Amino acid sequence: MAKTTLHRVTVQFGDCDPAGIVFYPNFQRWIDAASLSFFMQCGVPPWRELVKTRGIVGTPLLEIHTKFHQPATYGETIDVHTSIEAWAAKTFRHRHVIKRGDTMLCEGTEVRAFVIRDPADPERIKAIPIPEDIRALCS
Amino acid sequence: MAKTTLHRVTVQFGDCDPAGIVFYPNFQRWIDAASLSFFMQCGVPPWRELVKTRGIVGTPLLEIHTKFHQPATYGETIDVHTSIEAWAAKTFRHRHVIKRGDTMLCEGTEVRAFVIRDPADPERIKAIPIPEDIRALCS
Amino acid sequence: MAKTTLHRVTVQFGDCDPAGIVFYPNFQRWIDAASLSFFMQCGVPPWRELVKTRGIVGTPLLEIHTKFHQPATYGETIDVHTSIEAWAAKTFRHRHVIKRGDTMLCEGTEVRAFVIRDPADPERIKAIPIPEDIRALCS
Amino acid sequence: MAKTTLHRVTVQFGDCDPAGIVFYPNFQRWIDAASLSFFMQCGVPPWRELVKTRGIVGTPLLEIHTKFHQPATYGETIDVHTSIEAWAAKTFRHRHVIKRGDTMLCEGTEVRAFVIRDPADPERIKAIPIPEDIRALCS
Repeated sequence: MAKTTLHRVTVQFGDCDPAGIVFYPNFQRWIDAASLSFFMQCGVPPWRELVKTRGIVGTPLLEIHTKFHQPATYGETIDVHTSIEAWAAKTFRHRHVIKRGDTMLCEGTEVRAFVIRDPADPERIKAIPIPEDIRALCS
Repeated sequence: MAKTTLHRVTVQFGDCDPAGIVFYPNFQRWIDAASLSFFMQCGVPPWRELVKTRGIVGTPLLEIHTKFHQPATYGETIDVHTSIEAWAAKTFRHRHVIKRGDTMLCEGTEVRAFVIRDPADPERIKAIPIPEDIRALCS
Repeated sequence: MAKTTLHRVTVQFGDCDPAGIVFYPNFQRWIDAASLSFFMQCGVPPWRELVKTRGIVGTPLLEIHTKFHQPATYGETIDVHTSIEAWAAKTFRHRHVIKRGDTMLCEGTEVRAFVIRDPADPERIKAIPIPEDIRALCS
Repeated sequence: MAKTTLHRVTVQFGDCDPAGIVFYPNFQRWIDAASLSFFMQCGVPPWRELVKTRGIVGTPLLEIHTKFHQPATYGETIDVHTSIEAWAAKTFRHRHVIKRGDTMLCEGTEVRAFVIRDPADPERIKAIPIPEDIRALCS
């Protein structure tokens, strides 16, 4: 079974909109944080170290798909459960499930790639083959 | 052809992450703003008026799917092109395309519903059939 | 000595700007969260309950003053230490100190008021005298 | 009289909190954007160019002081009026006034410095004397 990590968030007043519920881009913000937290909990160094040792700038998002089942509001504690459910040559697919206790609030996938600065044009970034050691740490 | 509106955004320094590119939940923030802007440009009053006249609190998101093709950075002007590509009994599907000039940056869909406070429990919200007059304004 | 509470934050990648350090409005976001956390840790119910029992909508900000001493970056854990250092008839002054371990990152004050919906115009809000019971809980 | 620039913002639904008014750290976000906009409108290149030509990473904030007079809500257009009201050896003080039409919503100051990467430790940043040419462009 895929390694799964947990990223806990307390919903704040300022995360909620005039309807009193979480403004949904904040769910994406927490999902993004859960992705990085997943790598760090698996033992991968933070990007600001990897950029120096291996040129890896991060794992930008290629595609996201999320279904929202239940709203959340401030004062609540929610957990993002994160794993990698599929690996391709140059991309991988995260699965994220956000729960409040046993209630599923939202669930979805992210497709990401590991990128370096393009040697031909450092203004641009470029996907690299999935590093084997990182894949081993995260499976 | 479906009515299409434009929502223009200037990318700010604070919208970008340590890799120097837009932190992607900000794209979702702009897509959300483009959705509301779509309704207002089509002549639908803002939610804070609709809640008083018709009890409609807003159009919370049920599902989002976005593909990211190109990054953007601060100082750039980008446009979100928004339409409704499908109507169901109680939901509708937005299409959003974000461009910088002629370059497509990202594209995707949102499924949303019109909701009111649940009369049985005002803490909860409840989807209603798509209002015909709003559908007419937005098609 | 004034009651002091602690609000812990893990700095996320997306909280940082292209210079790699926390985009400062996020410090204000954490200070705002620390203010609400202070009241809840002191035993004051969340605003969505107080609005029903006593009409209190929240404690909007009247004035903020913050000095930034050291930057922070993602992966770091920081603590907001919050107290109320002065009470006036209709306002109070928070003191917030943000530390990473023993290093002070920033410090400042917020002046806030308790507000209700204005009975004469529910679109507007209106400051009320500091409720004695809340003051007692928070001193 | 000091050069003054204008930075226009349309308040979005997601910028507002459960009380229906702008969540105040968003005012700081717009003030930060207005600061950068001020420099660009005065003819100073964006930081990502200055970092390459002169090593200047940006103008991090040292101190902020803001008074909030009136709330704002979504759908409203507001303007940040920005100037530099004082120059010191290594710092300068911005003045920002936010208005909705003729109504002043908030006003305040920011003290900032121009910084470069510290040659002794590129992980750190370091203030430099105010560049004379930039000062001339901005006065």
